Amino acid sequence: MISLDALRAREVRACARLMRWLDDGLPEARVLLKQLYPHAGKAWLVGITGNPGAGKSTLVDGLIQKFRTRGQTVAVVAVDPSSPFSRGAILGDRIRMQQHALDEGVFIRSFATRGHLGGLASTTADVVHALDAMGWDVILVETVGVGQDEVEIQNLAHTTLVVMAPGMGDEIQAIKAGILEIADVFVVNKADRDGADRTVRELQMMLELGSSVEEPEDGRGHESQARKDFAGPMRRLGPRGWRPRIVKTVGLTGEGLDGLVEAMLEHKKAYQEAMKDVDFKKALLRREFLEIFRRTLLQRGWSYLMHEDHIREIVEELFGGKTDPYTLAEQAVSALGRL
Amino acid sequence: MISLDALRAREVRACARLMRWLDDGLPEARVLLKQLYPHAGKAWLVGITGNPGAGKSTLVDGLIQKFRTRGQTVAVVAVDPSSPFSRGAILGDRIRMQQHALDEGVFIRSFATRGHLGGLASTTADVVHALDAMGWDVILVETVGVGQDEVEIQNLAHTTLVVMAPGMGDEIQAIKAGILEIADVFVVNKADRDGADRTVRELQMMLELGSSVEEPEDGRGHESQARKDFAGPMRRLGPRGWRPRIVKTVGLTGEGLDGLVEAMLEHKKAYQEAMKDVDFKKALLRREFLEIFRRTLLQRGWSYLMHEDHIREIVEELFGGKTDPYTLAEQAVSALGRL
Repeated sequence: MISLDALRAREVRACARLMRWLDDGLPEARVLLKQLYPHAGKAWLVGITGNPGAGKSTLVDGLIQKFRTRGQTVAVVAVDPSSPFSRGAILGDRIRMQQHALDEGVFIRSFATRGHLGGLASTTADVVHALDAMGWDVILVETVGVGQDEVEIQNLAHTTLVVMAPGMGDEIQAIKAGILEIADVFVVNKADRDGADRTVRELQMMLELGSSVEEPEDGRGHESQARKDFAGPMRRLGPRGWRPRIVKTVGLTGEGLDGLVEAMLEHKKAYQEAMKDVDFKKALLRREFLEIFRRTLLQRGWSYLMHEDHIREIVEELFGGKTDPYTLAEQAVSALGRL
Repeated sequence: MISLDALRAREVRACARLMRWLDDGLPEARVLLKQLYPHAGKAWLVGITGNPGAGKSTLVDGLIQKFRTRGQTVAVVAVDPSSPFSRGAILGDRIRMQQHALDEGVFIRSFATRGHLGGLASTTADVVHALDAMGWDVILVETVGVGQDEVEIQNLAHTTLVVMAPGMGDEIQAIKAGILEIADVFVVNKADRDGADRTVRELQMMLELGSSVEEPEDGRGHESQARKDFAGPMRRLGPRGWRPRIVKTVGLTGEGLDGLVEAMLEHKKAYQEAMKDVDFKKALLRREFLEIFRRTLLQRGWSYLMHEDHIREIVEELFGGKTDPYTLAEQAVSALGRL
């Protein structure tokens, strides 16, 4: 068992063990999540995404130091887009983990992501909520901009940074993946390279074009759309009227990092202001519940299939050809509550 | 209502209407899916994926013509990776839809995808099963290699093509997204460009390196992994021992298309051979059921939340701060069967 006190005291071993339990989907982890829930809600959740090679890791390192200097504890969750098939981690163990190994005010943990629900949505949200409840001041969630993760991060984070490097064709990438619309702060990293100013100008232009797009809604839109939102990534919730900042940095030298922290804090302030609005807060609670409900559904569904080897029975029935999978799926869902 | 006869006769209007119903998640569509189920299983499902700019559309055009010449009917499902936020379609209406407009043996339909479950997994699988039951001989499912879709396509398709163009940095992209492991046939398109042979050589090298990786399992692996498979994309199921082919094509001139069709047919044959194995067939049924069960769970869950505005009640309770979302989510799942 893991003691709640150890977790609340941010003891590294208890912390690491809970992370592992969450990743493995143990029921005990869920019990702890419930106990931790009342303590959550104080941390500042920052999402950091961008294509490989944009320099996110170095930037995160720099941010850790900046926040430590300000006396804040920092937890980093790195979501590692390993292939769902080979299961090899791309990022692997990080040099920076050694760098902060002696600092008890820093906790760093990598997770292998396995697609949508197996990845960011299922484990990361729980991990972040747990870290929040443990009392970490700032939680940096780093995802690589491949797949769905970079869009989902904005459902979890208060403040989302999109990191780009000049001359990588990131701009087109941004439009393609809808990444433009999730950024609260754009970071043009490696700004000592040629083309940095051009990237900034292009971003400015895109933001101006994009500003004619309607404001994001609160998730209570059209019924059919809302149903799809439940199934897929949900829409952005943030302070109304926020115009994304664009900040130039050089991760390696630390240049521009103060400006970045300033832009982030500005957004934090706007977010906290928005939180005073009851409707905004309810929309956040709604989104959080939908995420948790979705995961609970899938977990319970899976337990049902494993229970008394139901899945084998079902496959045999289908193999017999006497029924269709739609009917059997409905029967299984109806039986869930009786488990 | 849509008549089953009209669908079975592949009447374009009935067909298009069912597609729309499926996309909107109407319960009537589900009733039709059940009725159609016994008729499905005859079509050849071909997935075609690759990065934007690789020339997939032109290639699909060429394939349509090749299969039409062989007297086969062809349905094309294009999954359109519109942004989950702006909802603008990137591909839009296609010139090729006009080109085949007078041919009753061709049906083309684009779907906007909205993330993982809202996208390929939820609508496309049903759409493809429906088209299969309607009697289309070949179903080409075209997805753009951004996000999760290109990995999921291999759960749906019998034969998966991964399309690349020389000099686009696709090679790195391929490893990154795990796309290498889903291809039955690699298509190096735009092969008249510089670097085509280099791309072929790099693919050959990667395949040789990759061949030391263990054979894909049948989905009944380690429990914890299987749980994640249920939540995320599932693993590849295909004929054992198949070594991916590499084919060079020039979509615009049609060069190499005959070789491509030949490689595809070779894989089809190997797949049909594998289907004679009871265990393989059961593994396919299992995977199909898990997909349908997952979608049913999410649909029923959503219906529950909408029923008598349960979701509003839940949000009010959370806002009151007397309970946690984990407990409420479990209660909601238990109540599902009683709906």
